[in-house]
Amino acid sequence: MPMTRIALSPVTAVTLDPHAPVMQDAAIHVEDGAITYVGPAHDAPDFEADEVRGGEHLVAMPGLINTHCHAAMTLLRGYADDMALEPWLQDRIWPFEAGLEEEDVYWGTQLAIAEMIRNGVTCFADMYFFHRRATEAMVESGVRACPSASIIGVFPDVPGQIAEARSYASEAAGAGDGRIRPCIAPHSLYTCEREHWTAVVDAAGELGVPIQTHAAETRAEVEEVRKRWGATPIQTLDSLGALDVPLIAAHCVHLDDTDLEVMARRRDGRSAVRVAHNPASNCKLASGVAPVAELRRRGIDVGLATDGTASNNRLDIWSEMRLTALLHKAVELDPTTLAAEEVLEMGTLGGARVLGLEAEVGSLEAGKRADVVLVDFDRPHLHPPHDVVSHLIYSAQSADVVTVMVDGQLLYDGGEHLTVDVDRAMAEVDARARRLATAAAG
Amino acid sequence: MPMTRIALSPVTAVTLDPHAPVMQDAAIHVEDGAITYVGPAHDAPDFEADEVRGGEHLVAMPGLINTHCHAAMTLLRGYADDMALEPWLQDRIWPFEAGLEEEDVYWGTQLAIAEMIRNGVTCFADMYFFHRRATEAMVESGVRACPSASIIGVFPDVPGQIAEARSYASEAAGAGDGRIRPCIAPHSLYTCEREHWTAVVDAAGELGVPIQTHAAETRAEVEEVRKRWGATPIQTLDSLGALDVPLIAAHCVHLDDTDLEVMARRRDGRSAVRVAHNPASNCKLASGVAPVAELRRRGIDVGLATDGTASNNRLDIWSEMRLTALLHKAVELDPTTLAAEEVLEMGTLGGARVLGLEAEVGSLEAGKRADVVLVDFDRPHLHPPHDVVSHLIYSAQSADVVTVMVDGQLLYDGGEHLTVDVDRAMAEVDARARRLATAAAG
Repeated sequence: MPMTRIALSPVTAVTLDPHAPVMQDAAIHVEDGAITYVGPAHDAPDFEADEVRGGEHLVAMPGLINTHCHAAMTLLRGYADDMALEPWLQDRIWPFEAGLEEEDVYWGTQLAIAEMIRNGVTCFADMYFFHRRATEAMVESGVRACPSASIIGVFPDVPGQIAEARSYASEAAGAGDGRIRPCIAPHSLYTCEREHWTAVVDAAGELGVPIQTHAAETRAEVEEVRKRWGATPIQTLDSLGALDVPLIAAHCVHLDDTDLEVMARRRDGRSAVRVAHNPASNCKLASGVAPVAELRRRGIDVGLATDGTASNNRLDIWSEMRLTALLHKAVELDPTTLAAEEVLEMGTLGGARVLGLEAEVGSLEAGKRADVVLVDFDRPHLHPPHDVVSHLIYSAQSADVVTVMVDGQLLYDGGEHLTVDVDRAMAEVDARARRLATAAAG
Repeated sequence: MPMTRIALSPVTAVTLDPHAPVMQDAAIHVEDGAITYVGPAHDAPDFEADEVRGGEHLVAMPGLINTHCHAAMTLLRGYADDMALEPWLQDRIWPFEAGLEEEDVYWGTQLAIAEMIRNGVTCFADMYFFHRRATEAMVESGVRACPSASIIGVFPDVPGQIAEARSYASEAAGAGDGRIRPCIAPHSLYTCEREHWTAVVDAAGELGVPIQTHAAETRAEVEEVRKRWGATPIQTLDSLGALDVPLIAAHCVHLDDTDLEVMARRRDGRSAVRVAHNPASNCKLASGVAPVAELRRRGIDVGLATDGTASNNRLDIWSEMRLTALLHKAVELDPTTLAAEEVLEMGTLGGARVLGLEAEVGSLEAGKRADVVLVDFDRPHLHPPHDVVSHLIYSAQSADVVTVMVDGQLLYDGGEHLTVDVDRAMAEVDARARRLATAAAG
């Protein structure tokens, strides 16, 4: 694809670069998919742009990063809510999922990608069925993603699943001009056995890919893992060697002091466990509230995540940022907990760190890939302009996003999707969800 | 103003009428400011409409109701966040407010009204300085409102304040073709003395207007009230006779069992205390989490509210609905707590009950005033169509609102404000906020 040269000027740049976090009247130059300049517009080098976007009311920021989701669960959005966990899973979610076909997952993922792109989410980690077909949707859309082949020990042919996870991880690496970064995803300690975990840890180490898993999501899970494995989820993962490869752990709601110490162990300048915090999902399923302020005090990397749309029901990191800023203040009874700047970091650069992509994305800096979002502040709820970062966290919403690029390619601009056929995705998902719901009820 | 005859057809009607809560392929007729028909489109009577809005993707619902705010605090949006309460008030909020002039409040209120209208909020209760000028903004905009004259015992000339509250309440009643319903607003038990409260309760009783006040917002307030008055805020208000007139109590976070019993006492088919629940503000200021599920179990009326934009920072009942549905599940550790239907009720009809307006607004029923909102479901995050009420609470956001009418008058339609000069309001608020911030810093 021919690369476009794009100038964003003038904009207010919220860079996430600690040396110049907020710049008024800034210019950003994008060339060959990378950011080549971020600085004062009046100092910008000469640049012949194919596309220019700018205006006093536009705020540029790094793309948001969703560190844990099950994208194709858009098919289940609104299918079952406000239920206790067991009947929700056993009577609703699993019977619906039992009918899933590969093309359902393809279209469910397409719709998820459309929603995320227009919300300013430029990168997400995914874990679901039919990962190869889902990866095709990711590649076609131009989004950045960390998809994974799942290993579910309670499903048939676990050795086959592990072999597939290995070959998928090596084959998908670098797909989509380097935007696809596969992971291996053993579902959890309560659905996989010791030999599965050992094989997965070996594979992840050999291939140099991260492990994505669920850990310490509910109190019941912690109790079950203690019974089966004799230790907490985090300490069990540690004893399995899973903390010696990059480990992306979703949820981490129920942790004890030893867990926190183990998680904080350093590895390549990052914590041994990188946490995908899913505040909306943890609330909606009544799992509890993760100790995010404490995780951060201990130096543990934390990014934000939506989980699947059955338990959220949005793929919207704006919502997760606002909820994070509000929820933990109420729980800690301290209004200084997780200030706007910290939460913005979790939604961008912090998420990149969780996925191991912080050298490439997560902030607006020359040399990084151009994953950039423009937010329109010419709206009543974003006035007066006392504090742009406060507005991004406490006042903005996903619909304020007007332009989204990944790797320097425009994916969404002026209300239009440029890479996803969103009308077809909505129609396909509607029809397929109807078929699946009918089958599940039958 | 000449009244328009409006047909909304075909729409999916989410009526809040328990006899037919959700109707597909519905028609709604609006004439002389009132709803004259809600029912199947194919059974609708002949109707010559001046304006028609309809489409498979449109959901009609009652306008949202904001039961407690300080509208003109839009001037302070983003001015001070993530601070402890005392320095936040003493070093930031109060010095800024000290410079407020009447025209500042007028324009701050205009901007707030614009934001609320486009968010689908058709009615709000207000409590701030310069209430007469603020009321003019409300009347001009066509919105429905319950503004109030405040009594603040720590400010000069309390007898003058009470006299003004009396004359304002009688003069403003019925302004704006009946859309303005004034209240009397003693600020709180910790800023007003016994003689102030006695005079206010007498005035409210005589004039037949509700009292709006803050109660049991923070633990520190409860302790202070116990010291000064010898009882909890709710029990003190009861002993003052404030529960024998309609009492709208904002916050009610910290309540004991006796408080709950006292509040549940019936009066005209409603609870003695009607609660304005401000979940975002209570989180952001770390006040705590109000026991909303328990309030509802006891039959106490609860509506939703934003509070002012210094502690939120939105005037967006969609956010409050979603936060209510999520927060209380996490706190109660029960995913069935406050299901989507219950939360939608709190944002609409429940809010009308809190303000004493449930005979006129809060649901789509023939005979009620036409405060109606259209939501566009032709968006990725509102597919597939498993459950419209789930989508309204868990997936929709304020930007999905496309048409808003109050009393049968279109106020917002297709992205345009029809009664508020929103560009001027943004410019005025920007300039005035800059002046006030400079003065407060000086």
